[in-house]
Amino acid sequence: MHDRESKRADLAKWLPALTWMRVYDRLALTDDLIAALIVTAMLIPQSLAYAILAGLPPEVGLYASMTPLIAYALFGTSRVLAVGPVAVVSLMTAAAISQIAEPGSPDYALAALTLAVLSGVMLLVLGFLRLGFLANFLSHPVIAGFITASGILIASSQMKHLFGVSAGGHNLPEIVTALAAEMTRLNIFALLIGTCSIAFLYWVRSGLKPLVMKLGVSERAAELTKRAGPVMAVVVTTGLVAIFDLHDHGVAIVGAVPRGLAPLSMPTFDPVLWSKLAGAALLISMIGFVESVSVAQTLAAKRRQRIDPDQELIALGAANIAAGLSGGYPVTGGFARSVVNFDAGARTPAAGAMTAVGIGLTAMFLTPLLYFLPIATLAATIIVAVLSLVDTHAMQQTWRYSKSDFSALAATLLGTLLLGVEIGVVTGVVVSIGLHLIRTSRPHAAVVGQVPGTEHFRNVDRHTVVTSKHVASVRIDESLYFANARFLEDRLYGLVVDGTELKHVVLQCSAVNDIDASALESLEAVNHRLGEADVRFHLSEVKGPVLDRLRNTNFLRDLSGEIFLSQFDAMQALDADSVARARGSNAADAEKLHNDARIIAGKHGET
Amino acid sequence: MHDRESKRADLAKWLPALTWMRVYDRLALTDDLIAALIVTAMLIPQSLAYAILAGLPPEVGLYASMTPLIAYALFGTSRVLAVGPVAVVSLMTAAAISQIAEPGSPDYALAALTLAVLSGVMLLVLGFLRLGFLANFLSHPVIAGFITASGILIASSQMKHLFGVSAGGHNLPEIVTALAAEMTRLNIFALLIGTCSIAFLYWVRSGLKPLVMKLGVSERAAELTKRAGPVMAVVVTTGLVAIFDLHDHGVAIVGAVPRGLAPLSMPTFDPVLWSKLAGAALLISMIGFVESVSVAQTLAAKRRQRIDPDQELIALGAANIAAGLSGGYPVTGGFARSVVNFDAGARTPAAGAMTAVGIGLTAMFLTPLLYFLPIATLAATIIVAVLSLVDTHAMQQTWRYSKSDFSALAATLLGTLLLGVEIGVVTGVVVSIGLHLIRTSRPHAAVVGQVPGTEHFRNVDRHTVVTSKHVASVRIDESLYFANARFLEDRLYGLVVDGTELKHVVLQCSAVNDIDASALESLEAVNHRLGEADVRFHLSEVKGPVLDRLRNTNFLRDLSGEIFLSQFDAMQALDADSVARARGSNAADAEKLHNDARIIAGKHGET
Repeated sequence: MHDRESKRADLAKWLPALTWMRVYDRLALTDDLIAALIVTAMLIPQSLAYAILAGLPPEVGLYASMTPLIAYALFGTSRVLAVGPVAVVSLMTAAAISQIAEPGSPDYALAALTLAVLSGVMLLVLGFLRLGFLANFLSHPVIAGFITASGILIASSQMKHLFGVSAGGHNLPEIVTALAAEMTRLNIFALLIGTCSIAFLYWVRSGLKPLVMKLGVSERAAELTKRAGPVMAVVVTTGLVAIFDLHDHGVAIVGAVPRGLAPLSMPTFDPVLWSKLAGAALLISMIGFVESVSVAQTLAAKRRQRIDPDQELIALGAANIAAGLSGGYPVTGGFARSVVNFDAGARTPAAGAMTAVGIGLTAMFLTPLLYFLPIATLAATIIVAVLSLVDTHAMQQTWRYSKSDFSALAATLLGTLLLGVEIGVVTGVVVSIGLHLIRTSRPHAAVVGQVPGTEHFRNVDRHTVVTSKHVASVRIDESLYFANARFLEDRLYGLVVDGTELKHVVLQCSAVNDIDASALESLEAVNHRLGEADVRFHLSEVKGPVLDRLRNTNFLRDLSGEIFLSQFDAMQALDADSVARARGSNAADAEKLHNDARIIAGKHGET
Repeated sequence: MHDRESKRADLAKWLPALTWMRVYDRLALTDDLIAALIVTAMLIPQSLAYAILAGLPPEVGLYASMTPLIAYALFGTSRVLAVGPVAVVSLMTAAAISQIAEPGSPDYALAALTLAVLSGVMLLVLGFLRLGFLANFLSHPVIAGFITASGILIASSQMKHLFGVSAGGHNLPEIVTALAAEMTRLNIFALLIGTCSIAFLYWVRSGLKPLVMKLGVSERAAELTKRAGPVMAVVVTTGLVAIFDLHDHGVAIVGAVPRGLAPLSMPTFDPVLWSKLAGAALLISMIGFVESVSVAQTLAAKRRQRIDPDQELIALGAANIAAGLSGGYPVTGGFARSVVNFDAGARTPAAGAMTAVGIGLTAMFLTPLLYFLPIATLAATIIVAVLSLVDTHAMQQTWRYSKSDFSALAATLLGTLLLGVEIGVVTGVVVSIGLHLIRTSRPHAAVVGQVPGTEHFRNVDRHTVVTSKHVASVRIDESLYFANARFLEDRLYGLVVDGTELKHVVLQCSAVNDIDASALESLEAVNHRLGEADVRFHLSEVKGPVLDRLRNTNFLRDLSGEIFLSQFDAMQALDADSVARARGSNAADAEKLHNDARIIAGKHGET
């Protein structure tokens, strides 16, 4: 019995759906059904629009909104995440594939679903190897810069639909140049539909909710009405095109969408294509994973639920493989749709599966209604959606907090805008890792002295402290590793030349969490070289785990000095005179100095 | 007057030669002269051999041993460093240039001196921008792996001279294959000269010093006699070839070396060549700089002198430009020759300038004596010299201390042996940076509780401590930055689901030296999400500089909880009950628990 329980728990770890399926009841069913209906209505225009953004036929967006939802419902750990086509991943798909095949061609669609499978396999492998932490190397500033730049790129890439012209480009200079060249062919009807849709969508965001609430609608319902803005714009503009035959005046429309469920499809196994797509697939996987996990974590916290990032990798992997096997393209968890799902009261991932059924029914029966839907309206919904990705507030905050982090953000932003999404992300990652290494390669280091009348030691430059001419004590506020090992050596050698009466150097290790092999070798060199100059080298306040590892080496045996539990012990042992001085100086003086030191320490908040 | 002094000091910073020139006297002159004589004798065969290793005519080695020494004497901060051709840089030069030009051709020599100028310019720029710390990114394990692999590569590349055949290759598989194909043409005389030289050189290393000391020679003189081994081998084997006409039996000899000083030369300014050489020049600069600085630092410490790494960049830059403008190739500070210079009693860089004069006189008058010098002897001196670079002890030590650092070492070693020097170094740098990020991305983190009867808090898994069901306290032993920001979030969210009665989470920041923008955003997210679950978020023991930076943000304003000076303050404020429990539990019990905790803490050495 117990055994059966634990087997069930094991299985539920890999198939989280088992957890909620066992307690699924009619109440949950009703809630999920309502949420699914609302999300379906929202997803239809969105998935068509994102497919077009990715350079694919609109129905591919519908296909990518069916099977991935079901796969995620089985394997995902978030109760409310809604996966499917999203703006940034669609842009990255377009950037990756348009270098390989002609947009609109069958090769292009084949490459897109191959990209989904490849990205899915990568996510699965990362998940099984529990390598989700690799996504951490995309720092927040890099993601902020990338998402903002993507928003700008996507909005500008949609301008052509607003103007009713055709133009390409995968970075800002290309897009602007291509657009400028086409301006003479501007279609006034498309422009009217597009700009009016944008104006309407912006009004919906701010004006609709108060209006319907005045009509006595509850706040939650009003919030959901607000989310229905794009659907209203689609219905009205489709009607206008149909009534006034605007497509005969050159307004681009969705046209005939094949009816039917997502087709079974197979990716190509051409190794040349796989190797061409591998880099893009990895970036799409990582960016998609980061976006999806942060959405899932935000929503889970609201209900005191928890998500498992490594299992999320597996679930997103399964969703992408499902997308690739059913005529879709890369998908991930989307922010807007997940929030709608959450707000609409979804209780379990079954809501996602029901949404998939809703999209399926649409694809089977309702596509004729989409015939007259103008592309300009879809472009308008995308532009309004992605401009909210442009986060100037995050930029200001980062600038204020850390110039170094801001440089990483700016490098990613400019790299993405000017050179394209892939180079942009890679630039950002390299810059942020480089800056981190540079920052930690010159750690804060202070020569310390004893605060009179206490056992505390503080920076000689910031406090009134007692020092010894025979003993120099240095505190380094950083773990010691290869990037700062030489800094450490330089700092300690510097002491020896400056103080000719010097007999002891004490390194206070209270802030040292780790010592790697390079730093160990530097410490050995310091010990050796100080020894050559007849100066003994000591350590104080070494943390337990660090000391444990040093015990595996010859360092402690070869050390000319000792390991002291505290800096005070070190000073007592090495220069009892100076300690006596710190203690014995006229009591009132000592009290005063002590208070001064505490005031200064308090001011600087130093501990 | 004072003004003149300070101007002089400014000038001396850029031209360190001014410092020692002002106090130069007859005693220093005598010491320097003796050292220069000894180093010159040692350098002649070495510089010929290294030039041949680099694929250049032997006289280029002499040229590279004149002007660079004078340039370094003017700009260098080490009193005893001897610059010139060294084994590893010669190997890297050969690897870089043989892809561009045919060894032995004028284009090859031109590319070599262009490489020297390019590398010199890079060193100068890095020096003026004070970017010497960039060399830190070459971690000790990477350097150890690279130097060992280079030693093996160089020794195997010299086997062809030992066998008297010609064969190429820039990685171990290539070299071994090429050598095997040539074995039928083996020259028995070359092999005899080579192997006897190797045997003699090994005997000199261990047997000669005790022998001459028995003859009543002082230890220092005996040490220098030992260093003269290569010169003896050169004299004897040159004599044998000349007497027995061995060159007529196919023994390769140095032959006619043009007489005269280093010629004036100009590098090419072909941008295509510069861009092809740029990567190699950067690696050569970095490796050369690291080797040179560590030699200089070791020797400076012995005399309580100090070197300035950024000024060293400028000095090495000047030395390389000088090499490029006088028909040489890339140079750096060499270990063996610097030690000889030091042991021979050199007092100032003037010894280097005198060595340059000695080499100049040799080049002008003594090259005919080198005519019959067999290449096999030069190969033997190289093999014996570089095999000492193979450092299995460092490998064992690194393996014992840290498997992660060992992986970086092994990756560099194998990469260099199997794929060549450039790919090897780059692989090593990437691997060591990646491993460092991975290591710090999963920092040590502990849930802590109060040690009964004390104000101390310790890991609940290692100690008997009192915890509270309303307050969870976590200590993270690492600075918080992008690579571990998500780990931090996961760790803190985990607490909330596990403890349903939880009202407070306290993050103890005693080991946090820095919080970057990503980690700040994670802390904001944690604060927000814990707030959604009605849990307040607090920090304790935040360091002064970290707190100062947080004050620039909205984080402290938005924080649902407080910042406590100590973890004990936090517990007293948030759950006085649990503190009372920790304190009030029967006094004897508390005393016992306290002692237990101290014993355990002592055992683990945890502070």
